[in-house]
Amino acid sequence: MKTINVAILGATGTVGQKFITLLQGHPTFKIHELVASPRSAGKPYAEAAGWKQDSPIPEAVASMTVKSLDEALESPILFSGLDSSVAGEAESRFAGAGHFVISNSKNHRMDKDVPLVIPEINPEHFQILDTQKTKGKIITNSNCSTMFLAMALAPIHKAFGIEAVQVTTMQAISGAGYPGVPSMEILGNVVPYIGDEEEKLETETKKILGTYKDGKIIPADFLVSAQCNRVPVLDGHTETVSIKLKKKASPDEVRTVLENFRGMPQEKNLPFAPDKPIVLMDAPDRPQPARDIWLQKGMATMVGRIRECPVFDIKMVILGHNTVRGAAGAAILNAEALWELGYL
Amino acid sequence: MKTINVAILGATGTVGQKFITLLQGHPTFKIHELVASPRSAGKPYAEAAGWKQDSPIPEAVASMTVKSLDEALESPILFSGLDSSVAGEAESRFAGAGHFVISNSKNHRMDKDVPLVIPEINPEHFQILDTQKTKGKIITNSNCSTMFLAMALAPIHKAFGIEAVQVTTMQAISGAGYPGVPSMEILGNVVPYIGDEEEKLETETKKILGTYKDGKIIPADFLVSAQCNRVPVLDGHTETVSIKLKKKASPDEVRTVLENFRGMPQEKNLPFAPDKPIVLMDAPDRPQPARDIWLQKGMATMVGRIRECPVFDIKMVILGHNTVRGAAGAAILNAEALWELGYL
Amino acid sequence: MKTINVAILGATGTVGQKFITLLQGHPTFKIHELVASPRSAGKPYAEAAGWKQDSPIPEAVASMTVKSLDEALESPILFSGLDSSVAGEAESRFAGAGHFVISNSKNHRMDKDVPLVIPEINPEHFQILDTQKTKGKIITNSNCSTMFLAMALAPIHKAFGIEAVQVTTMQAISGAGYPGVPSMEILGNVVPYIGDEEEKLETETKKILGTYKDGKIIPADFLVSAQCNRVPVLDGHTETVSIKLKKKASPDEVRTVLENFRGMPQEKNLPFAPDKPIVLMDAPDRPQPARDIWLQKGMATMVGRIRECPVFDIKMVILGHNTVRGAAGAAILNAEALWELGYL
Amino acid sequence: MKTINVAILGATGTVGQKFITLLQGHPTFKIHELVASPRSAGKPYAEAAGWKQDSPIPEAVASMTVKSLDEALESPILFSGLDSSVAGEAESRFAGAGHFVISNSKNHRMDKDVPLVIPEINPEHFQILDTQKTKGKIITNSNCSTMFLAMALAPIHKAFGIEAVQVTTMQAISGAGYPGVPSMEILGNVVPYIGDEEEKLETETKKILGTYKDGKIIPADFLVSAQCNRVPVLDGHTETVSIKLKKKASPDEVRTVLENFRGMPQEKNLPFAPDKPIVLMDAPDRPQPARDIWLQKGMATMVGRIRECPVFDIKMVILGHNTVRGAAGAAILNAEALWELGYL
Repeated sequence: MKTINVAILGATGTVGQKFITLLQGHPTFKIHELVASPRSAGKPYAEAAGWKQDSPIPEAVASMTVKSLDEALESPILFSGLDSSVAGEAESRFAGAGHFVISNSKNHRMDKDVPLVIPEINPEHFQILDTQKTKGKIITNSNCSTMFLAMALAPIHKAFGIEAVQVTTMQAISGAGYPGVPSMEILGNVVPYIGDEEEKLETETKKILGTYKDGKIIPADFLVSAQCNRVPVLDGHTETVSIKLKKKASPDEVRTVLENFRGMPQEKNLPFAPDKPIVLMDAPDRPQPARDIWLQKGMATMVGRIRECPVFDIKMVILGHNTVRGAAGAAILNAEALWELGYL
Repeated sequence: MKTINVAILGATGTVGQKFITLLQGHPTFKIHELVASPRSAGKPYAEAAGWKQDSPIPEAVASMTVKSLDEALESPILFSGLDSSVAGEAESRFAGAGHFVISNSKNHRMDKDVPLVIPEINPEHFQILDTQKTKGKIITNSNCSTMFLAMALAPIHKAFGIEAVQVTTMQAISGAGYPGVPSMEILGNVVPYIGDEEEKLETETKKILGTYKDGKIIPADFLVSAQCNRVPVLDGHTETVSIKLKKKASPDEVRTVLENFRGMPQEKNLPFAPDKPIVLMDAPDRPQPARDIWLQKGMATMVGRIRECPVFDIKMVILGHNTVRGAAGAAILNAEALWELGYL
Repeated sequence: MKTINVAILGATGTVGQKFITLLQGHPTFKIHELVASPRSAGKPYAEAAGWKQDSPIPEAVASMTVKSLDEALESPILFSGLDSSVAGEAESRFAGAGHFVISNSKNHRMDKDVPLVIPEINPEHFQILDTQKTKGKIITNSNCSTMFLAMALAPIHKAFGIEAVQVTTMQAISGAGYPGVPSMEILGNVVPYIGDEEEKLETETKKILGTYKDGKIIPADFLVSAQCNRVPVLDGHTETVSIKLKKKASPDEVRTVLENFRGMPQEKNLPFAPDKPIVLMDAPDRPQPARDIWLQKGMATMVGRIRECPVFDIKMVILGHNTVRGAAGAAILNAEALWELGYL
Repeated sequence: MKTINVAILGATGTVGQKFITLLQGHPTFKIHELVASPRSAGKPYAEAAGWKQDSPIPEAVASMTVKSLDEALESPILFSGLDSSVAGEAESRFAGAGHFVISNSKNHRMDKDVPLVIPEINPEHFQILDTQKTKGKIITNSNCSTMFLAMALAPIHKAFGIEAVQVTTMQAISGAGYPGVPSMEILGNVVPYIGDEEEKLETETKKILGTYKDGKIIPADFLVSAQCNRVPVLDGHTETVSIKLKKKASPDEVRTVLENFRGMPQEKNLPFAPDKPIVLMDAPDRPQPARDIWLQKGMATMVGRIRECPVFDIKMVILGHNTVRGAAGAAILNAEALWELGYL
């Protein structure tokens, strides 16, 4: 099978390490370059990385020499886990130089000409890539907590229409990277604030569920209100959601729509596609982050407790693996979709 | 000063132990009898209790012989922390025998002739005690998570009117008593379900904020939707709330109304009354359970992050000490209010 | 390949559930009967179990009807995860009825005629089975914290001789089963006491490292002092150990001996045998329970920080998966060894 | 009563903040200057501090302008919570300039002419201050985990003599300061390594229990072996200890000696002296960090589970509040002792 070289931007960071871990044995994408800050550049990756994953550094990667973000790169595809303090400029520069930048960073997500795609939901948004003037392109995936909300809302939005959404998140510490949240702040505690997170949920969700028309993305017209909390959980974002529908539907009708949801990654059988993008859970006290995040290799969105809402129409609990489906895995699936659709 | 004898029903349980701890040195209420299940009856309290509080068993209490729930009691006032499996029948029986039962148990809260009172909010509801046919009476306080929601909503409801409320709770393990939540279920986890808790929040809040008229309580007419979660926090329930108002108000107007809220316990300077029933917090990441629950000796409701809601009007974060203001402390304040108002 | 029917005693308990999970797809042992208390008997297993494992109940097992501990059983081999309150009598009875009872329970471990075996260390102890008068036999594995201590000490004892051992354990909550440790006791806490645990470590270790001679086990003659603590860790017992040697040895010599340790399960390539029974870790801050317990599918003993002890000779840190290698996995490996050696 | 001005070196750090909190209302020491890195200098303390204590910044302190470590200071007494990267040079410089530096930093603890004092144990070591050539002086307290070990060993050493000690610590995250231990490393985990901690325990303990003679401290001649672990506990270091005595003693004799232990702070009734420096706990599962660290206002050392050791003579469990008695509180008590003894 034909393979294609990829580079990891921000290779020593938490998301970069996850890219490396997940891409092991990938049928199409072969890690060819590792890129990090000037401080790490020139060192063997194993020495520069400060590796924090549970599995050891893949051998082929351990001895690669880290390149600097300033250098010219050879790989046509760049997976970006860059910190937002540098991602904006660097990703634009690489796109200008002809690379496809598949980015997990927040900087360009809301740019008018940048697709913010979850391939089960809005692969047609890739079409706005044509409006990017550069030789290369930038493609983004959503914020981790947006991922699971958008995934659960998409089939409901399509089937019944959505007017408004109230969501409260309980997010894992791994979402803040490493070193991230100091243990003195979160052990036995809840921190009811995550910088910028609520804004991301409120805007990204509407862009993803928006409509592509004539070279533009028209955001979905429903309202979203988010309240984001950090909880002492290692991996897995849990979200409680209340939804006001345009067309009334019973919990059972919603359940059926979620159960049957499939998208382009499932149809095309992409390597990172979960068989079922949404896994329904029947037990009254599920999903739970410590028990359910690894379903479908961490690429599923779990939904439970679908029931009537006394204020809106439907409420439910959503869960997903924030560093797999919510970050590196999302970018890889985007790349697979682009590859399948002939963009790369 | 005149004192009055009280008994603790369910004295060996978690709430019972808290009653004992909090009543030490109380100017009015003197612990005279300790009542528990037949299994504990006849033993010295120190032996029967399985004491779990951080402070030692008060000496005067340690040597008291535990009475059985079946026995006749001498104390005019009974504080009940009985398990709901026995509270319903036992409390009715004691009221029939002429005792004032100040109960933290859920069983009679929604009874038509039983006041469900937070004395800062609805002391006038005590008037329906007249409709109880028994010689004694039953008075209840709210569920722990209802307490903080009702407290934060009350001044807003009065000033602006409320149409609807969405609330998501993140509740401490101590809310489940002892042994309560197994550590294997909650360590590093979120459990998105607490039996009956959502129903309590949705109904009790409306009764407390309801209107007394002609021997009846007419519940408030707004809608409440609750989603309740258990989180690995020892003490302190955190709640995210979105409120739809009848009359629009800015976050600053809401802040002012909460800041200035005072009630009958503050006016009468009751021993357990917090100086400020609502403590506003300005830092963007507060209130937090591990840091803020002991403000005002555990009797305050903390409110932070008051801001506009894109879907409703106002959103905010609420916190309170679930086993103090949310349970035993609430019952004691009710008793103090009844005493002050001449009911006892 | 020939298979043999097995029953699980205590099938609804924590260890019983682990037996069921681990035996899925086993080449030799086929689950044929599930046995539990009279309360569960007669029900389908899925209904009786209160299943707490992360993976779902295996289909073939879910619909089996649970048998009562009182009934006669068909399977020649019984894996016992019975509670110690009933294990003593029941296991003796089943051995009397001709079954091979492979037990994880503590009751018969120190019986003179019962082998307490870790097959990498003392498979020759199986010979005392001849002294059991019954038609069937009882074979036991060690307590979970003993397992990792004995495993690390065995090659050192053989190579250099041991005079004394000081061990402090930091044990996971899963070691106490379900519901086990209340969350209110262990969240953010250390409990410096586990009932009977220190005695087990101090006696079992010496029996396992003892010598079989003329139908008797002569315990090893060194001294062991144990201090056992419960810590807020889900799975994985960590132990700090100081060892006084008979013949001096450097940390490097100890490292070599541990690195090269192999036993009968590795030589015979038993299905549950880890390739390396002892995995050395070089990083100064490893092993750690949250990161390392699943090495070798949970069947390895991790050893790190081997260094000189200012008081004795050598100190080190030991770690293992308490519910896999420390419990159900140990019993299964014992059964495989017995099968390989022709006892079954 | 006469008061004396003090400065806090490292005032914005974790220990510095604790100094400020604990010194509120002190009868003798009045905070006059706050000193921090050039980055904080010139700002009001409230702005520079990044305050992390549970109680609010004392008003008098909040508005003080932070001074730079380079500036000359006015206060005769300096409490130092400086980071070890700067403490060595800065403390020497201030001593040279005539200040009494009461330091919690590790840098000078093992200097020959610097007293390392726990005033209950070795106030006579203050005499070596005479050998410091500078106009001012440096006085140190022990490392946090050393504090509780030395405190428990001192009366035993005096009564029976000690030959050897094995100690394993389970240390709280607050011991690493802020931000300190990343939550991703410690949540649900044990980290069996704390840099330099074992060396501190092994050397400081012997200096503290050593003998002052002719201008020198002769270290105690017993051996100490330490193994140090980080556990997910907020405050409170727990230690398991085994002791080999010179003169045999029963657990009851040891208990009596610990129970009766008093020192100079108790005799002189110093403000920060706990009534009982050692609090014995009888329950089999105590002391526990989440429950017992605040006994005696955080200034006591708790000892429990005193029993025979099969290898040495006595084993026990020790606990103390690492940031109170183990750090800032220790320095304050040292200053009080120096004041009482006429050194200041």
